[in-house]
Amino acid sequence: MIILINGEYKEYIEIVDRGFQYGDGLFETIEVKNGQSVFLDRHLDRLNAGCNRLHIPLTNIELLTFEAKELGKYSSAAVLKIIITRGSGGRGYRQPDMIQPTRVLSLYPFPDYPIVYKEQGITARFCDTRLGLNPALAGLKHMNRLEQVLARAEWNNPAIQEGIMMDMNDYVIEGTMTNLFYIKNATLYTPSLAQSGVAGIMRSIIMTVASEHQLPVTEQAFTKDALLSADEVFVSNSIIGIWPVNKIANTLFQVGSITRQIQIWVDIFKNEALRCDQ
Amino acid sequence: MIILINGEYKEYIEIVDRGFQYGDGLFETIEVKNGQSVFLDRHLDRLNAGCNRLHIPLTNIELLTFEAKELGKYSSAAVLKIIITRGSGGRGYRQPDMIQPTRVLSLYPFPDYPIVYKEQGITARFCDTRLGLNPALAGLKHMNRLEQVLARAEWNNPAIQEGIMMDMNDYVIEGTMTNLFYIKNATLYTPSLAQSGVAGIMRSIIMTVASEHQLPVTEQAFTKDALLSADEVFVSNSIIGIWPVNKIANTLFQVGSITRQIQIWVDIFKNEALRCDQ
Repeated sequence: MIILINGEYKEYIEIVDRGFQYGDGLFETIEVKNGQSVFLDRHLDRLNAGCNRLHIPLTNIELLTFEAKELGKYSSAAVLKIIITRGSGGRGYRQPDMIQPTRVLSLYPFPDYPIVYKEQGITARFCDTRLGLNPALAGLKHMNRLEQVLARAEWNNPAIQEGIMMDMNDYVIEGTMTNLFYIKNATLYTPSLAQSGVAGIMRSIIMTVASEHQLPVTEQAFTKDALLSADEVFVSNSIIGIWPVNKIANTLFQVGSITRQIQIWVDIFKNEALRCDQ
Repeated sequence: MIILINGEYKEYIEIVDRGFQYGDGLFETIEVKNGQSVFLDRHLDRLNAGCNRLHIPLTNIELLTFEAKELGKYSSAAVLKIIITRGSGGRGYRQPDMIQPTRVLSLYPFPDYPIVYKEQGITARFCDTRLGLNPALAGLKHMNRLEQVLARAEWNNPAIQEGIMMDMNDYVIEGTMTNLFYIKNATLYTPSLAQSGVAGIMRSIIMTVASEHQLPVTEQAFTKDALLSADEVFVSNSIIGIWPVNKIANTLFQVGSITRQIQIWVDIFKNEALRCDQ
């Protein structure tokens, strides 16, 4: 793994960094393909929007883009994780008067997921761990991730690839590491993330391409029962793209034609973005 | 500041530590007085109980006690922060098969709070930032502390010493860095922490000494209005002890005799604990 901390190649961070003390920061997880960071602009936009919401001073986009390119040179297929924290200082929860954010870019090997996940779908389960409700943090990819850690620790069976999480009100929100979609009567549904969950970049791209191709998209709260009566189900994130779900608990799903179609739309959209970005 | 990481004096931690990546850990904040860590046993019990709930392997209590004593030697009045994280490793949120927790003990200067806070009381305000609801994490002193950071960032006025936080259902829960109590008709009330909040060591001591002295204690959900109609209000934590609250927003409170009495009970209880611990 290669790590750049505030522009220097090193692997350690100060104990007093507020990212470590309080999870006081945000992150992005980005696919690197042939040295290019996929959808980098969108990721950096989201990062800065998150910094705005948490009142962390914005990091220069050109600098982050430059550093992402530098790290990208080391790999043809990798995952770039960008972390921005509120830096060090302040007494207790109180932030310092002068905030100097910490930026950490790390390049990880691309995870070796079997191609069948994308082609034939995955098996999912429902997690017992619930997502808390909090509009102030909802949608953000922040560093307070204990709920996801606890949910992911619920199963060890390698035949299950993802766990689906509900909120305290029994609404389905997302997977532990993915956003969730279902298709019913040729309409695409995905949970509202007004009270919890992470608003993924791949999620927004899926909603964009669906709309562009006149596939109706509905973002709303829904329960387990609605999900289990779906025609097709899939999960998404920036690293896996789209994985059809062919089984949740004991309910089976077809890997349907609309999911296939969305996979193709996303691939085209991505290749276009990569070409324009070169 | 003096820092011991896994038994070594150093100041930096690996980027890949899950404490930094996900806030995947717990902490304790302990008063050090004349080299002794106050209520160390209780803090270490709570730490291990928290590790149990998060499925982090327990750290040897004797080792932590030894290291706390080592660090304590450096100071007559300090704050000892003990952090336990799930260590490094695993892919994404998934924990590694073999968890090797990281332990960090840091010794900070004792904060220089004016004595009038304890004697004449403080001014508090209500925070807009709400505490999320999540029974899986409620009560724990875990490292996911963005809500407290956002709440504490709401004000800069040095005349206000604490912010009171409510949950999503408008129930009063705690201060940004303290637990909260009020007295009404000679009964002590404190919020239920079943769905959010941190169950402080000082909170449990206050409830213990109150019960021992036949002061009725009620732990229940209550609203802003109930709080504002209280006879006396105070906040507590392991560092400040008990601070009476003489003003919340525009409502004034007496620093009443029951609060004074509880301060004395706690001081006696603490001196007893320090003597037995020597």
